[in-house]
Amino acid sequence: MPIRRGLEYDSRPMARYFKSDNTAPAAPEMLEAIAAANHGYARGYGDDEWSTRLDERFSALFEKPVRVFPVSTGTAANTLALATWIPPYGAVLTHEEGHIVRDECGAPEFMTGGARLILMQGDGAKVTPQAIESALAANPTSVHTVQPRALSITQATELGTVYTPSEVQSLSNIAHARGLAVHMDGARFANAVASLGCTPAEITWRAGVDVLSFGATKNGALTAEAVVFFDPQRVADFEFRRKRAGHLLSKMRFVSAQLLAYLDNNLWLRLASRANSLAKRLGDAAGAALMHPVEANEVFVRIGESGAATLREKGFEFYDWGAVGSGEARLVVSWDQSEEDVSALSAALIDLRQKG
Amino acid sequence: MPIRRGLEYDSRPMARYFKSDNTAPAAPEMLEAIAAANHGYARGYGDDEWSTRLDERFSALFEKPVRVFPVSTGTAANTLALATWIPPYGAVLTHEEGHIVRDECGAPEFMTGGARLILMQGDGAKVTPQAIESALAANPTSVHTVQPRALSITQATELGTVYTPSEVQSLSNIAHARGLAVHMDGARFANAVASLGCTPAEITWRAGVDVLSFGATKNGALTAEAVVFFDPQRVADFEFRRKRAGHLLSKMRFVSAQLLAYLDNNLWLRLASRANSLAKRLGDAAGAALMHPVEANEVFVRIGESGAATLREKGFEFYDWGAVGSGEARLVVSWDQSEEDVSALSAALIDLRQKG
Amino acid sequence: MPIRRGLEYDSRPMARYFKSDNTAPAAPEMLEAIAAANHGYARGYGDDEWSTRLDERFSALFEKPVRVFPVSTGTAANTLALATWIPPYGAVLTHEEGHIVRDECGAPEFMTGGARLILMQGDGAKVTPQAIESALAANPTSVHTVQPRALSITQATELGTVYTPSEVQSLSNIAHARGLAVHMDGARFANAVASLGCTPAEITWRAGVDVLSFGATKNGALTAEAVVFFDPQRVADFEFRRKRAGHLLSKMRFVSAQLLAYLDNNLWLRLASRANSLAKRLGDAAGAALMHPVEANEVFVRIGESGAATLREKGFEFYDWGAVGSGEARLVVSWDQSEEDVSALSAALIDLRQKG
Amino acid sequence: MPIRRGLEYDSRPMARYFKSDNTAPAAPEMLEAIAAANHGYARGYGDDEWSTRLDERFSALFEKPVRVFPVSTGTAANTLALATWIPPYGAVLTHEEGHIVRDECGAPEFMTGGARLILMQGDGAKVTPQAIESALAANPTSVHTVQPRALSITQATELGTVYTPSEVQSLSNIAHARGLAVHMDGARFANAVASLGCTPAEITWRAGVDVLSFGATKNGALTAEAVVFFDPQRVADFEFRRKRAGHLLSKMRFVSAQLLAYLDNNLWLRLASRANSLAKRLGDAAGAALMHPVEANEVFVRIGESGAATLREKGFEFYDWGAVGSGEARLVVSWDQSEEDVSALSAALIDLRQKG
Repeated sequence: MPIRRGLEYDSRPMARYFKSDNTAPAAPEMLEAIAAANHGYARGYGDDEWSTRLDERFSALFEKPVRVFPVSTGTAANTLALATWIPPYGAVLTHEEGHIVRDECGAPEFMTGGARLILMQGDGAKVTPQAIESALAANPTSVHTVQPRALSITQATELGTVYTPSEVQSLSNIAHARGLAVHMDGARFANAVASLGCTPAEITWRAGVDVLSFGATKNGALTAEAVVFFDPQRVADFEFRRKRAGHLLSKMRFVSAQLLAYLDNNLWLRLASRANSLAKRLGDAAGAALMHPVEANEVFVRIGESGAATLREKGFEFYDWGAVGSGEARLVVSWDQSEEDVSALSAALIDLRQKG
Repeated sequence: MPIRRGLEYDSRPMARYFKSDNTAPAAPEMLEAIAAANHGYARGYGDDEWSTRLDERFSALFEKPVRVFPVSTGTAANTLALATWIPPYGAVLTHEEGHIVRDECGAPEFMTGGARLILMQGDGAKVTPQAIESALAANPTSVHTVQPRALSITQATELGTVYTPSEVQSLSNIAHARGLAVHMDGARFANAVASLGCTPAEITWRAGVDVLSFGATKNGALTAEAVVFFDPQRVADFEFRRKRAGHLLSKMRFVSAQLLAYLDNNLWLRLASRANSLAKRLGDAAGAALMHPVEANEVFVRIGESGAATLREKGFEFYDWGAVGSGEARLVVSWDQSEEDVSALSAALIDLRQKG
Repeated sequence: MPIRRGLEYDSRPMARYFKSDNTAPAAPEMLEAIAAANHGYARGYGDDEWSTRLDERFSALFEKPVRVFPVSTGTAANTLALATWIPPYGAVLTHEEGHIVRDECGAPEFMTGGARLILMQGDGAKVTPQAIESALAANPTSVHTVQPRALSITQATELGTVYTPSEVQSLSNIAHARGLAVHMDGARFANAVASLGCTPAEITWRAGVDVLSFGATKNGALTAEAVVFFDPQRVADFEFRRKRAGHLLSKMRFVSAQLLAYLDNNLWLRLASRANSLAKRLGDAAGAALMHPVEANEVFVRIGESGAATLREKGFEFYDWGAVGSGEARLVVSWDQSEEDVSALSAALIDLRQKG
Repeated sequence: MPIRRGLEYDSRPMARYFKSDNTAPAAPEMLEAIAAANHGYARGYGDDEWSTRLDERFSALFEKPVRVFPVSTGTAANTLALATWIPPYGAVLTHEEGHIVRDECGAPEFMTGGARLILMQGDGAKVTPQAIESALAANPTSVHTVQPRALSITQATELGTVYTPSEVQSLSNIAHARGLAVHMDGARFANAVASLGCTPAEITWRAGVDVLSFGATKNGALTAEAVVFFDPQRVADFEFRRKRAGHLLSKMRFVSAQLLAYLDNNLWLRLASRANSLAKRLGDAAGAALMHPVEANEVFVRIGESGAATLREKGFEFYDWGAVGSGEARLVVSWDQSEEDVSALSAALIDLRQKG
């Protein structure tokens, strides 16, 4: 009964897989947390003992009172967060490489009731103050145009780079001066914090971030993301919007338990640090082929189409990147990537350099 | 740090709990399935080995080729299914007691881009052919009014009753004659099938159902729902809408594994049958206080405000139902409700009769 | 070239026409106003000399500072007004006979991003305090349900009745106590004010109305409606929403000039009074067949199917009303309805009584 | 009573005004047509004798059966046309200078339920085949991204240039090959046709255009725009969407009468030709300052900030264009612009050259 499943089905066996960090399994601590939460009755929709501890736990982590809302996907986290801040005639300034731009099938437009993404450019998928100033100048306050109301940046970025606290602060300053909220897409927030060595507070609200999509799925959870509001007064209507979008889980305890376990004993930073350091090894191996500094768990290399073909002959799987024929490739290291796979890919990259 | 969590936080200890079936834990088979799926890499977004087996597995269950799409919540299942069929200027005919009417914070309107629910009445939360005929007569084809394009019925209903295959067929006939699709909200589909003793096919597509929200969460899963399309050609744009709503899970294997385990060895029907038979005991104990036949796992009783108070004094938790002061109560039995709790509640109900 | 035009094309010659008041021509004063405005250049989008006088002119009429926004249709006025007050997860309480319910093809849902209409009943299409209380009780503050945020009433109603100031006040009091805004659909506002003999202020903001759809098209304009906000601070984002919905006219002077002329020399009340008094004659003629008091320019009669047939044989055109076969009919009198037509219809109605 | 009117109120007296063509009055033929239509009763919502002649009249004009739908604004025409073709997860390819991008406050996103505009570049605000190919390559068929479903081009463009039939054909070919519909924003369609000297058919459906926004307001109407569908089978749900957006006028005869008069005796082309030829004089006067060929009624000049100041000192009003400080200006000639104003501006432009 040959019914096609998805739009991009891929039936090849999986090995030496560097395509994405959401292909990794869940960390054992996650399964243990779920099993531990699976005893007796628990009130639904977030009134259970795990979910009700989240605010306090994340407030401690971020060193100020915050509100935390679990959801199932990063797309839901990003776009519900934005929808709480942006009117339908609003606009979100964001980098053209962003996940909300390229990989969410228009979810930001959907959740906001039709707001627009205003795209900016910048090296390493990082937004610059100049780009924001230009975008704001091109979209003045006028009834004839959409109204910028939020800046959304990704940390770590889609090109594996990381904003420093002072960089975030300089962007937030411009945004706030024009009345824009600052949203951070932290699908790889753990990788960024591990890389920076700063506190979570320093790279978020102390640098002007108003709301954070806090990701865990890519870094060891089964399915666990959260939206963190740094000003409890600004939560406004988030809860209604989450429910209305089908993202209020009845048995929320199972997601909340993952989020708690993710923070316990610094699991989140341990897993991210490991992935970061393995990625760094790949970056070192790539040498001049490296396109962007390796500041998280993603490595971008310009190895030519023949280089890519050579790697694939050796069994490595990864995505071509950039324009067709650019010879660029993206290599993503997961939290449990084997040392063996990384060593093999490093050797292969070095090999390319020597032949190149 | 006293930050309020939800809108309805309830901090009392939980015991003798008959409020809802989504407060129960997950069945052990579900955790085992997740653990078994947690080995090695698996492609994301449904291209894993568990998700890709769903179509075949459900096609066997329903005795015809179907397409199956996992989602995280019943709200997402119901409203994404409807959104695929209904234009923004369309309308869904449904019973006024329906979950999509009362418990989804406007998700049907959101997912469809603003379609309307046209409410009907009927005993036991069941829609009648007459009600559909009247609703259709009141909403003719005219550019001035919303256009009915779907009928949505709930099986088992929100009042614990069940439609027979011939009842569904008579509703579907009217709907199809006017070009409406037929959607079945099967959040408690297992309870209905167990109660009817029919095949899943008989109560769905053979009776005219076009698309089914197939629920598992209330009946033993952690978090697993699915949308089942009975005509693979009509799936149309469901996948885009699911992604766009943030409901395409990256690590979908963990939901798909639950759905497979749910069907294995008839687990779904065993769990539902147990809940149904315990509910029947409560219904028998209620005697004349029983408001609707007990055909699934929910029991509705008219016990007066003093009766409700008496039960609560004995430690039972449940929702008051109907209008304020009506003295009606809803008792829901979960898949793992203890025999002891049911016996105690039965005794208490009998006690009320004797005093009444 | 037989291409069908609309969905309800009707090619019969028109005569003795009592179907609707939007079939009448425009009053001569309207054409004169347009011609007078058609000299020289005028800034677009409302910065012309006619549009910029509207706030002051309507503020004088309503005896307080108001903000006025012209739009082209009553549907636009009603639904843009509501959209400014209602979040997507909100709900509007309204009578089931309302224009926003029956005749706008879901425009309220569209403009609000998917808010819901909660329907109420009441004699003469008038909402009662009890109906509001019940609707509010059935829709509590909970994340699971839509949130009532506005009450919308029609003045004059769709059944030709009129709310008194004290009736409006009693409804507004309940609405405001629960945080709902009060919207008045005044497609036939002139008929209501003419009928009540009160000031425009008394029946609107002094009685608790927050925003008014001020209609002129049905009462002599070519195309001119306006939204009037009684609290200039609450206008919020109306202008963005109007533009975004395609309702910001570039050559707005031609609509604004009509609105000014409509108020000049009490034209609006003169036209409405005439229609009202002619309608009253029909009501008197109907005798016991009259279903609702004639308080504006619409008359509803129960004349049986044979009575309706008799009138149609005599060349009168009107809509059947109510359920199929109810024998009810709606007779609408326009601002320029001929005395002759009204006399003829009166005689025919008296004739029916004598034969009945 | 100093209540602010709009967001951009401008109270200066108007003279030598080249800011926009929607500041001009209506042509006398338009007022005459309205007056002629203002006799007796006419059925509402498009079932009147004027509206019902539109399909036939436009079918004759375009030399094939078409369907025509009047609306009040160009924004409504553009975005309702697109909404009929584009699903919410769809995307429209369009030039970054387009009216739908810059001047409709997000109306395309609103009307489509959140579809995205994918922006392209190109000289003279004209889209190139290469730009379309690149945009399509960057947005493949995948559940993760929005799906291109339409190409929208403007004729004449926002920079006063015009596409030839063969240029349109080459764009349409690419669009159709990928399943995209082709929409033409013809707010200045008359200027384009007058400039090209071709038939309306040659520059629309014969060149692959599927749906046209046919503008009349900027070229002499009071308020009259229309959507023209070249394939009557593809109209689909336009009428529901128009009604739902508040754009189905009850007294539609007054807009339809304008559209008929606009075509009578080639009024539309006479008015547009006059404006075009006056604009050409300005372009000739500008000499090397001219930025784009003058192919319609708009002239873009690079005259420096001091040049702009000089013109303003002489009483000319116009918009600065391009980036702040670019020294670019837009000069728009209306259908009834006085020869005197044009001569004066030409002289001033020549004067600037001699001093420059």
